[in-house]
Amino acid sequence: MRDFVQITGGVTAARGFRACGVEAGIKYAGRRDVAMIAADAPCALAAMFTSNAVKAAPVRVSLERERSGLGQVVVINSGNANACTGEEGLFNAYAMTRIAAAALAIDESLVTVCSTGVIGVELPMERVAEGIERAAAALSREGGQDAARAIMTTDTVDKQCAVSLEIDGRSVVIGGMAKGSGMIEPNMATMLAFVTTDANIDGASLKYALREAVSVSFNRLVVDGDQSTNDTVIALASAAAGNAPLSPAHRDWPVFLDALKSVCMELGRQIVMDGEGATRFVRVRVTGALSAEDAQAAARAIARSPLVKTAFYGADPNWGRIIAAVGYSGAAVDETRARISIGRTTLYDSGRVADRETLAAAADEMRARTFDVAVHLAMGEFSDTIYTCDLSHDYITINADYTT
Amino acid sequence: MRDFVQITGGVTAARGFRACGVEAGIKYAGRRDVAMIAADAPCALAAMFTSNAVKAAPVRVSLERERSGLGQVVVINSGNANACTGEEGLFNAYAMTRIAAAALAIDESLVTVCSTGVIGVELPMERVAEGIERAAAALSREGGQDAARAIMTTDTVDKQCAVSLEIDGRSVVIGGMAKGSGMIEPNMATMLAFVTTDANIDGASLKYALREAVSVSFNRLVVDGDQSTNDTVIALASAAAGNAPLSPAHRDWPVFLDALKSVCMELGRQIVMDGEGATRFVRVRVTGALSAEDAQAAARAIARSPLVKTAFYGADPNWGRIIAAVGYSGAAVDETRARISIGRTTLYDSGRVADRETLAAAADEMRARTFDVAVHLAMGEFSDTIYTCDLSHDYITINADYTT
Repeated sequence: MRDFVQITGGVTAARGFRACGVEAGIKYAGRRDVAMIAADAPCALAAMFTSNAVKAAPVRVSLERERSGLGQVVVINSGNANACTGEEGLFNAYAMTRIAAAALAIDESLVTVCSTGVIGVELPMERVAEGIERAAAALSREGGQDAARAIMTTDTVDKQCAVSLEIDGRSVVIGGMAKGSGMIEPNMATMLAFVTTDANIDGASLKYALREAVSVSFNRLVVDGDQSTNDTVIALASAAAGNAPLSPAHRDWPVFLDALKSVCMELGRQIVMDGEGATRFVRVRVTGALSAEDAQAAARAIARSPLVKTAFYGADPNWGRIIAAVGYSGAAVDETRARISIGRTTLYDSGRVADRETLAAAADEMRARTFDVAVHLAMGEFSDTIYTCDLSHDYITINADYTT
Repeated sequence: MRDFVQITGGVTAARGFRACGVEAGIKYAGRRDVAMIAADAPCALAAMFTSNAVKAAPVRVSLERERSGLGQVVVINSGNANACTGEEGLFNAYAMTRIAAAALAIDESLVTVCSTGVIGVELPMERVAEGIERAAAALSREGGQDAARAIMTTDTVDKQCAVSLEIDGRSVVIGGMAKGSGMIEPNMATMLAFVTTDANIDGASLKYALREAVSVSFNRLVVDGDQSTNDTVIALASAAAGNAPLSPAHRDWPVFLDALKSVCMELGRQIVMDGEGATRFVRVRVTGALSAEDAQAAARAIARSPLVKTAFYGADPNWGRIIAAVGYSGAAVDETRARISIGRTTLYDSGRVADRETLAAAADEMRARTFDVAVHLAMGEFSDTIYTCDLSHDYITINADYTT
């Protein structure tokens, strides 16, 4: 994949967008918890949502709004997921879009909404409404950072990135922000991501590109294997760059697609690096699988295994747990042909087992903040990559007492 | 299900069996690590094995030996799984049975073998051989306890139980021992269990009964979702009770089956209670599912979720994580109809959410060593139960540095 020029900023890096984050007091005092992203005019919109059968109210509302391929404003609150909140919750999610639309004097069908936080608690709508109104007044070209902070829950750092590229010889920017950080699994878990671009692209093409990008980025992340009721990725395109309309037929389509992928992968990397209690970022690559499904199943099983993840935490090159995970993944495997490496160190090859010195070298590689696990199955020609983190004491501490 | 009279003892509670556990120095000095169970004569044998595609050498040997339905001796070592050890590993597993057979002057086809411990390390065969020979000389009617200790790895207590029942008016005993304690998942993970009975029953009927019993006990346990390369359940029946041969056609078949289930469930309960770092035993019951598959998928998703398990650890009645797990399990669910309870406290019912006092009452119930989580889906008539534990700091500590 191409490399792109990284630039500073997030959702306001591209022309045509303003953002902000304000304090509404939804759960805690003294922290930003309502964010807003606004395009200067109605523009192309695409979104992808959680595959969880239990969908939060804002997900249902945004699902409906996304169908038109057209949008202008996204309103987001943290501290409360507005999930499993019944009819009142659905009413409140619609109300959030209505309040934002009224404050900005636009049609409410142009507003999408996201919530993240505790499940099953009704939103404190008086505070939320007041927060949205203040957010509408606070939108600015410099507000990306505040917005990125306002969507955080147990995240310890805000997550943003932006790249610049050329389409038709015009300068185009794609930027984004995201939040994790527990409940992260393939098919997205409490993860919100927002991408804005000044490229000229219609809603359908933007959706097509977003689906491709999410498939190799957010849907390849595993923190703990849980999937949330609220996951959402939203993309907006303002057309301010003035390029000829992008579609898969455009000569520069592959460039745009790669840039979008690179933004989504970088946001995904930031999410995993900030996974609850995570101390290491691990790229799990499975090659030589009999089918694409096998490659993915094997990589996911490794990335999900609590035993493997605690070994990552302990910098313990326990390749036995890795091959055991492949063994129960459902993938075709023959341990007399498989090969397992960590970084540049081969731990196991077709029945030959690493000696103590090699294990010590692998343990050294695992002490880095980032390392690769490679499993070659030697069964066929398919491969897949999953991004994950370790399972540490802090994960337990963070999650053992979250609601109370 | 019927209640049975609990008696003391384990694999030597039934007539016709001797056992022992000796120190062979396989991994550590000063602890028993070779166990043996021996029937006085060749008798009915049934076994079930891991579904992991990567099967340890002893599993392959025992799979072959079990086909005859006839056996006499089981030899077990802890401290080394003899998995991913190639041709030499397979040779060593056969050698273990040959050494035991020679020491006891029986045919080696009557010997099955199990190993548990670290993956990918060749067995120190000199010490193993010497251990097996000493075990053969140490067999006794009182050796059940030593055997139960010798099969432990990270287990903190040995696991045994026995019940007495009547078949044809004859007193019959079923007893057993097991070891856990991490890597425990449905379809069995590093779990070894051994059941002996003096009932008169042929190998095929014993296998039939064992399959039924394992399905409601060992295959309904979740500690961490990992599945090992070595899991094995072996049953031996000595016929010493002198009842008319048991088969599904026998009048007392349901009594025998229930007793076998009760022994397997009790051993399973002991495994989960001693799960790595576990502080609570939780029965997850899903009712009202649209299909049997849905009921099982929903219960397993709850029991596997790291977020749910850390909430159990924190005595945090975070039902939102429970319904989120059901939502991604694949089971049909409509959160406006579902009901979630912990113990006698309903946390969520068809969109109605518990108040602070109710949540506090549920948190009190969760502070017990054992509690129930009940989810009613109101979609159909199927139900399932999974037994699990919490996810605690000690799990991380135990597993972050196991091989080194």
